[in-house]
Amino acid sequence: MITPVDSGVAAPRGFRAAGVACGIKASGAADLALIASDGPATAAAVFTTNKAVAAPVIVSREHLALTGGTARAVVTNSGCANACTGDAGLRVATLMAQETARALGCEPEDVLVASTGVIGVALDPTKVTHGIIAATDALDRSAKAGADAARAIMTTDPFPKEYAVRVDTPAGAFTIGGMAKGSGMIEPNLATMLGYLTCDAQLDAPTLKRALAEACDVTFNAITVDGECSTNDCVFALANGASGVVIDAATYEPLVDGLRAVCHELALGIVRGGEGATKLVSVHVTGAKTYDEAKRAARAIANSLLVKTAIHGADPNWGRLIAVAGRAGVAFTLSGARVVIGRTVLFEHGRPFDERAPEAADYLTGKDIDIEVDLGTGGPEDATMWTCDLSAEYVRINAEYRT
Amino acid sequence: MITPVDSGVAAPRGFRAAGVACGIKASGAADLALIASDGPATAAAVFTTNKAVAAPVIVSREHLALTGGTARAVVTNSGCANACTGDAGLRVATLMAQETARALGCEPEDVLVASTGVIGVALDPTKVTHGIIAATDALDRSAKAGADAARAIMTTDPFPKEYAVRVDTPAGAFTIGGMAKGSGMIEPNLATMLGYLTCDAQLDAPTLKRALAEACDVTFNAITVDGECSTNDCVFALANGASGVVIDAATYEPLVDGLRAVCHELALGIVRGGEGATKLVSVHVTGAKTYDEAKRAARAIANSLLVKTAIHGADPNWGRLIAVAGRAGVAFTLSGARVVIGRTVLFEHGRPFDERAPEAADYLTGKDIDIEVDLGTGGPEDATMWTCDLSAEYVRINAEYRT
Repeated sequence: MITPVDSGVAAPRGFRAAGVACGIKASGAADLALIASDGPATAAAVFTTNKAVAAPVIVSREHLALTGGTARAVVTNSGCANACTGDAGLRVATLMAQETARALGCEPEDVLVASTGVIGVALDPTKVTHGIIAATDALDRSAKAGADAARAIMTTDPFPKEYAVRVDTPAGAFTIGGMAKGSGMIEPNLATMLGYLTCDAQLDAPTLKRALAEACDVTFNAITVDGECSTNDCVFALANGASGVVIDAATYEPLVDGLRAVCHELALGIVRGGEGATKLVSVHVTGAKTYDEAKRAARAIANSLLVKTAIHGADPNWGRLIAVAGRAGVAFTLSGARVVIGRTVLFEHGRPFDERAPEAADYLTGKDIDIEVDLGTGGPEDATMWTCDLSAEYVRINAEYRT
Repeated sequence: MITPVDSGVAAPRGFRAAGVACGIKASGAADLALIASDGPATAAAVFTTNKAVAAPVIVSREHLALTGGTARAVVTNSGCANACTGDAGLRVATLMAQETARALGCEPEDVLVASTGVIGVALDPTKVTHGIIAATDALDRSAKAGADAARAIMTTDPFPKEYAVRVDTPAGAFTIGGMAKGSGMIEPNLATMLGYLTCDAQLDAPTLKRALAEACDVTFNAITVDGECSTNDCVFALANGASGVVIDAATYEPLVDGLRAVCHELALGIVRGGEGATKLVSVHVTGAKTYDEAKRAARAIANSLLVKTAIHGADPNWGRLIAVAGRAGVAFTLSGARVVIGRTVLFEHGRPFDERAPEAADYLTGKDIDIEVDLGTGGPEDATMWTCDLSAEYVRINAEYRT
């Protein structure tokens, strides 16, 4: 049984968190987050597929390879992506792990590193070092500490995103906590988003890696804000075993359910907080021949500017949905296709029902929008993607000169 | 030698054109265009790759297959796409060919049909029939007639697009005329755009088809406004031989050069007139391993919301260009990559030159923007795509309820 609990990454036993300001952000807002496990934790991560990877991604990958999948801490700065910063950037990312290890009394390879912010700007080694020392001092198990960490990883996010659940199994209860940041460059395959999962169950690294991948596929990898995939995306999972619950054949599914519940909530939070977003849109594609085709069609619709602007304007423009499904590069049969907005069927059996448009337009004025497109092939597969509408505010945010 | 000449589709000998209003558009603006050749013309076309094809596309494909590549006329209505309109829509598209054939005294299969406008709305057979009769009466060789036709195919286009060139060869001179409409749903592989080419050289259908494909690859298929591909895209080419110049091994290249010149001008006109566009942006990708990879990377950059909004805001955000190149799914080497905006190198040999950003920002306030991204692989291939910036006006246009 999955039950939401208060707090975020500090909710599971044996984890502490902190968020502090160390001057990377000119605004003086919090910009360094630390998550630490009291003892060694099994660790796994999913990284960006972008070929222009940022320095912290290179360092975190190396560290996971060196340890074979354990970690004590994850240190993150916001306000600077430390990407496209060459050898100097690699040195600062390495320094972040070294300073965190020194402060916590572990090895540098036991520390994972993440950064988010503007690309191509040098990260000040003195500032992050001071931040790491301050964050180590501030480490705490309280809900406030988790919330501080969730705030310290924000960039243009309008609100922090954290969530935690208790998972009850016949073998006992364990807890999963999480936090994430968006909020531009969000796409399938993790596009500048950072996600953090803490768990007090006990399991080995391959199992954690597999469970993380399963949970991400239908959550973090099923959202899009603007179709971009960044240089810095990571989702980290740490499991320290402090609950005493061992993950085995009987408890694996509850673990995945719990991870999925936390990732789902965080992923939807990222979309809701998308740059300029005013609506959360679920795009459900049915009648696909394969799951891959269902997801590809859902992704094409979720990324379509014409669809996203129509939804922004509460325009039940089913023609755009059909046109995007038709160009998505998947099997599609117009005569069998169907478009449903909310509960209103607007196109079915090759004919439109435009008389129902006012009903659908009214529904589209809401904040939570469900869209269903059947590809008409008679295939059995379906998939869901979550996206947001595209507003003039998105353009304004992204057209402004970097400051 | 290629020399621009006045006029558009009526410029080549033996072609006449007309554009009239028949009441499809509520505004009373011109909405029916007719191009006719005095005698039989060789014909070729490129159609949308969208699987949800509109009725006129189905009819035009059938007619070209029936005739083996000849035509007398192309009839087009704007204001209604006649897409997703089922059997009734097919009947109206067929009727358009029949009525045009009756008016001109040819067979229905000698008439090609196109429509553009809102998807899913029924096309009134009475209105188009009246329009065809009026357009036939108005057919004329004058520049004004060509201009009328170019206006009658517009939807949200801010200005008509027509162009013509004289091609001088040792075998004599011939003329190529053209017109096109945009302006949303423009993407590689023809996305609601319509293009029309008339030519008075003499050649067979397979040669015209090949020449048209060559010309489209680097023009109509190298532009994007919003990454969409519509249900109705077509580019038609008609060549009636009235100049007496025969296309052979010696005149084939001049023909392709001429077609390319006309298509280039029309394609760039479509981008310039893109919904909400304020800038024309050329994206040149170099250092690619293959031409396909060069074009794929150029397309990813040209469709990136973050790139298009940055350019709109005159922000020389080279980091976004690197990030998009890195996620484009092509070979990419960060240490060898290079970003040039105008003549300003902003990133090279793995390091940024942010001190040059003000120079690039100043350049970006212009209307014609050149961007070059080298993928850093040392590969020899390059490709160019043209796109426009993304403005709040695009969102406004597309978020408004259909009227």
